[in-house]
Amino acid sequence: MSKLDEIQKICLNRGIVFPTAEIYPTISGFWDYGPIGTLLKRKFIEYWRKTFIKSLDNVFEIDGSTILSEKVLKASGHVDSFVDPITQCDKCKSLFRADHIIEEKTGNFVEGKSNEELTKIIRDAKLVCPNCKGKLSDVRVFHLMLKTEISSVGGQVGYLRPESAQNVFTSFQRVFRSTRAKLPMGVAQVGHAYRNEISPRNFLIRVREFNQMEVEMFFDPNNDKCPLFDQVKDKEIMLFTREDQQKKGKSIKIKVGDALKKKILPNEWIGFFLAKEFEFYKSLGIPESHLRFRHMLPEETPHYSGGNFDLEIDFEDIGWKETVGNAYRTDYDLIKHSKHANTDLSVALDNGTKVIPHVVEPSFGVERTITGVLLHCFVEDKERGWNWFKFPANISPYIASVFPLVNKDEIPEKSREIFEILKKDFDVLYDESGSIGKRYARADEIGIVVNITCDYDTLKDDTVTIRDRNTTKQIRVKIKDLKNILSELLEGKKLGTF
Amino acid sequence: MSKLDEIQKICLNRGIVFPTAEIYPTISGFWDYGPIGTLLKRKFIEYWRKTFIKSLDNVFEIDGSTILSEKVLKASGHVDSFVDPITQCDKCKSLFRADHIIEEKTGNFVEGKSNEELTKIIRDAKLVCPNCKGKLSDVRVFHLMLKTEISSVGGQVGYLRPESAQNVFTSFQRVFRSTRAKLPMGVAQVGHAYRNEISPRNFLIRVREFNQMEVEMFFDPNNDKCPLFDQVKDKEIMLFTREDQQKKGKSIKIKVGDALKKKILPNEWIGFFLAKEFEFYKSLGIPESHLRFRHMLPEETPHYSGGNFDLEIDFEDIGWKETVGNAYRTDYDLIKHSKHANTDLSVALDNGTKVIPHVVEPSFGVERTITGVLLHCFVEDKERGWNWFKFPANISPYIASVFPLVNKDEIPEKSREIFEILKKDFDVLYDESGSIGKRYARADEIGIVVNITCDYDTLKDDTVTIRDRNTTKQIRVKIKDLKNILSELLEGKKLGTF
Repeated sequence: MSKLDEIQKICLNRGIVFPTAEIYPTISGFWDYGPIGTLLKRKFIEYWRKTFIKSLDNVFEIDGSTILSEKVLKASGHVDSFVDPITQCDKCKSLFRADHIIEEKTGNFVEGKSNEELTKIIRDAKLVCPNCKGKLSDVRVFHLMLKTEISSVGGQVGYLRPESAQNVFTSFQRVFRSTRAKLPMGVAQVGHAYRNEISPRNFLIRVREFNQMEVEMFFDPNNDKCPLFDQVKDKEIMLFTREDQQKKGKSIKIKVGDALKKKILPNEWIGFFLAKEFEFYKSLGIPESHLRFRHMLPEETPHYSGGNFDLEIDFEDIGWKETVGNAYRTDYDLIKHSKHANTDLSVALDNGTKVIPHVVEPSFGVERTITGVLLHCFVEDKERGWNWFKFPANISPYIASVFPLVNKDEIPEKSREIFEILKKDFDVLYDESGSIGKRYARADEIGIVVNITCDYDTLKDDTVTIRDRNTTKQIRVKIKDLKNILSELLEGKKLGTF
Repeated sequence: MSKLDEIQKICLNRGIVFPTAEIYPTISGFWDYGPIGTLLKRKFIEYWRKTFIKSLDNVFEIDGSTILSEKVLKASGHVDSFVDPITQCDKCKSLFRADHIIEEKTGNFVEGKSNEELTKIIRDAKLVCPNCKGKLSDVRVFHLMLKTEISSVGGQVGYLRPESAQNVFTSFQRVFRSTRAKLPMGVAQVGHAYRNEISPRNFLIRVREFNQMEVEMFFDPNNDKCPLFDQVKDKEIMLFTREDQQKKGKSIKIKVGDALKKKILPNEWIGFFLAKEFEFYKSLGIPESHLRFRHMLPEETPHYSGGNFDLEIDFEDIGWKETVGNAYRTDYDLIKHSKHANTDLSVALDNGTKVIPHVVEPSFGVERTITGVLLHCFVEDKERGWNWFKFPANISPYIASVFPLVNKDEIPEKSREIFEILKKDFDVLYDESGSIGKRYARADEIGIVVNITCDYDTLKDDTVTIRDRNTTKQIRVKIKDLKNILSELLEGKKLGTF
């Protein structure tokens, strides 16, 4: 069993995440977060918000509708271009991504090729259906948006948004004016997006309903300076350059300031986000060796882009996958919407000149990040006898669990009392069933940071033991200090060092 | 202009909430939350979570997919029964809810009548199209779910969920087992739901995409005691009984314990939630006089229900509207899913007996609550010269704003310093443009609780003025006390009383 399969099994058993409506034959690519997963996801999003919204000046969060009208997505280009090339087996009727089948079977990278070219490659390489060896059809386009009809007889066509960004562009004017903001100004959004994937797979990696966290950073095209760039210019990132990709080389460690000087990065804003992201993902427990920014090749990059850099995580068995897309979208979207909606989306600068702002967009995949965190925080621990998650304290579903050592002699009552006090300010779990060893195992398995045990001494001197998930070491502390200890753990301090 | 129209205007101007993609001809019933609205909504949901999840024992939150397969919604009854009776104008082709048109024009309440009966009433009363006086068609059903086709050629049918509850029922077994919970046990969910409303209207009251906050409380049908009922039995609520509705009477004030004794309430769990909700809505700033629980009439109640109680808010110009639905759903959903999925959804009690749990469900409408809060916290203030929102501190978008008295002599720098310190722990706003009076007006208008102003004295003695939005009174405090003051305001204390 691969590590990802093992993790998926734990996720099902412990109610972290599981297929939607799994008591029925399910439609693949839809997942429900259970109690543990919901806490993990929420804390992770809150941490992201702190890092990418609150710690920046002038970034505003909006929360838009997930259904957008055909007009909006026609303007953005999605109705015409958000398609995948597919081929279908004549015999078993299975559908496949033509580019994926070719890349898998021939090892050649075919991004950007036309349907005719892809069909020719399939014929020349004599590729057949991987399931039944049937004949594959000519390559055609497949629309990736989920469509719905709104209202009544002959209603209006809408789509479930394929990315959250379009709400930001269509409401840009309203947000810019109502906040009285000046450029540079960011608009962020966290929410659902939907893609009609042909073959959802790899747990949460390729799904049909997912969550994005995006920032659209709008700035004056004649002044692309990032006021915070100085803070990050000496930060190192792993960068997989176009040159190294073509030479089948490796990613290099480079300071973002140097990458900008070498003109690999198009502007300071891209550099700023790359530096922040690299630090953020490391702080989530993903080792530097499993992170890289891949400079997208020209054929992978939309014509209007000023440069795209994907943060990729090495998911081991299934390889490197895009987890954050960083795109210099220039003024493409605002110009498109200006034209299609026949509205002036330029903004006035202090000197009165009007400009259409340029945009740098970091777009984070919540589910892919969570999968990366699950995978890289997973500790296979023969010594301990059980496997566990080394989640950072600030995103752990529960910061602490509270155990009574035995279920008698007023110890459960005392434990409950402590639990109720902590519960007011923290996410904590109470567990009184089975041996202490089993309770440690259950707590470690969902990454609870510390375990607080009440025993006979607690009744005498109001102290408890507190056990560190990472080291299994225990120390004895006063009940009245517990709140401070948990707060300090959440701030990243280690037990026993403060 | 009605008060609701006035509020809608402020919401647009201040970026609280506005129509989705409004630069295009929009599809009605879809709204985006702007920066202020996003903060308000998030804080309100967090407060709900604290009240209805964290303060209860044994309630777990999940976060499920918003698209459900046809099988799930066939089992739940939505595919067949989630419909509205409609009539269409032969001339202008407008669609109308037949029951609404009849109730408006005749004053008679027709819930539960068949399409044939409704058609007959339209004919007998000679009702015509309200827009163009054209002939109205026979009444027929209109499906309220938004449909989509997933996957590829001849794909699977899915629907955007019409209520969040179905994820809870379909994952009940998984959640019950993975949490090792015992009955009574609750599963909560906060998230999107969608309804293909025929005529969205009244701002956020009748929309097509909205948010629900639900708790499904599962309990042993042979033991419907709520362990927390004692805490609430003497709490008073406004109850609009079936008898009083039929007599065109008024709602009465009654203790939930008494309503239970009189058998108006079917069990303690319903009583518990009604008491909690009444307190919760009052704490949001909605006066008691504008709140009531309406005991739904038999013809409004599904056949399987053990009693439904709608918390209604008086929205003034548009009357009383359901904002929370409280339903004793019995074992209806779990039995339906057991049969359709051919799975045993019973659970073992401590004594080994297996039961299908009964369910009490409070289902909160986020958008209707927010509209209620906007409406009832709105203060039309001739004396002050501007209108403002009296939001409770814990849901106010910003707890404080920070102003420099003048934009010179190191005062902006000092103000920025204070702002940066507070920003780490609180949502605060910095504003340096225009006169102090204008800044107060702008802050009041979005319900900022206090305004902190730095002046020349600040440079000398590290004190600032802090102004109370509700009273406009100012006091002078030390900068180092600001964090404590804001924390205490968030806990509900009043400025100057601590």
